[in-house]
Amino acid sequence: MPAPAPKALVFDVFGTCVDWRGSIIAEGRTLSTRWGLSIDWTGFADAWRGRYQPALQEVRSGRRPWTILDVLHRESLDALAPAFGLDKLDEAERDHLNRIWHRLNPWPDTVAGLTRLKRRFVIGPLSNGNFALLTNMAKHAGLPWDVNLSCELYRAYKPDPATYLGAAALLGLRPAETMMVAAHYSDLQAARGCGLSTAYVRRPREFGDTPKPDLPTDPQVDLVVDDFEDLASRLGC
Amino acid sequence: MPAPAPKALVFDVFGTCVDWRGSIIAEGRTLSTRWGLSIDWTGFADAWRGRYQPALQEVRSGRRPWTILDVLHRESLDALAPAFGLDKLDEAERDHLNRIWHRLNPWPDTVAGLTRLKRRFVIGPLSNGNFALLTNMAKHAGLPWDVNLSCELYRAYKPDPATYLGAAALLGLRPAETMMVAAHYSDLQAARGCGLSTAYVRRPREFGDTPKPDLPTDPQVDLVVDDFEDLASRLGC
Repeated sequence: MPAPAPKALVFDVFGTCVDWRGSIIAEGRTLSTRWGLSIDWTGFADAWRGRYQPALQEVRSGRRPWTILDVLHRESLDALAPAFGLDKLDEAERDHLNRIWHRLNPWPDTVAGLTRLKRRFVIGPLSNGNFALLTNMAKHAGLPWDVNLSCELYRAYKPDPATYLGAAALLGLRPAETMMVAAHYSDLQAARGCGLSTAYVRRPREFGDTPKPDLPTDPQVDLVVDDFEDLASRLGC
Repeated sequence: MPAPAPKALVFDVFGTCVDWRGSIIAEGRTLSTRWGLSIDWTGFADAWRGRYQPALQEVRSGRRPWTILDVLHRESLDALAPAFGLDKLDEAERDHLNRIWHRLNPWPDTVAGLTRLKRRFVIGPLSNGNFALLTNMAKHAGLPWDVNLSCELYRAYKPDPATYLGAAALLGLRPAETMMVAAHYSDLQAARGCGLSTAYVRRPREFGDTPKPDLPTDPQVDLVVDDFEDLASRLGC
């Protein structure tokens, strides 16, 4: 495995940088106590995220025009609300709950690892999250990004090549000078297909107690790391 | 003058955050010593910047398609090179000189002021500089931006309303929740026309010993400040 020499690192966010599932369950419990509701937050978090790829696919396929993730999240929330006892929420409460995706918490190593990586590389999120979502999340979670490379800028969702190539182009870099970091193998394979270098980070807790390993035996990536501190060490930071 | 209550601050960069003229003169002298050339860097810096607005105007007017500032800067450099004794530079040297705009130095108060403002607000450059130029400058100068709101993202140059409105939209904010900070009154008037709040910062040294004051007696802005530390204090940071 040759040592890659990137100038910038771009990151998947949901699951890779932040624990979306644990964050929704934890903040959800606080919210439902305030609202006087009894909610299965684990079931709701999984069901909400379960509607993520199908909603993106409507946009990717061209069946609906470009739509930011905040809107897709809200549609899924509204569709699931009755089954989870959330249909009693008023508009302000629903909007606040929908923006829980702006308030996700990092994995324990995320901020320390990014802080080390930032010393040597340009770092930024390359996520299907919309620009405001990623901006607000960075403020909430203390993610020290240099730039925000949200897929909203290309009006396309990963794994569309326009996203990987668009990020490298904005940075003024060749794809090979840009490294994609993700906990999802399919994301990295798409980035690799565009000429980016790739780092797979293990996030065995993304789905709680039931990991969904997706790394093949002979992975076609430049690096496999245990967390962001490990990534920083492997890249000499 | 009512106190504005912004959620994000967006900044003009050339002249407002960084001393483009002093930086080009200082680094130019180092470069010409290395290259064994005698160059009038003060004259060259002023002539190079003098071609900036006319070059932008070609794009604004639609006479030429969208073109990033790095390309416009390079064209101006090539046009001026013979008159300033820079025509001896080879391609690598010209490219390095052209990217001097990626390596401009901040005013003495810039980093400290931005660091204070970042605690309370989302901060980012809203500059005609291209995305990579602003990204590299931030790394060079230590500008602690949360986001990069380069006009390249809207494929339009200030004062096109698409730039001010585009920045607010990406941030998920109403224009009135976004404050434009600039040392140039015309930039602020355009932002104000789009509904943004405005802060004028005095930069009497932008043009060296010959200030070009442009603030009218009764300015139509929300704040007038002496520097970024003053801005942070006025905004309660």
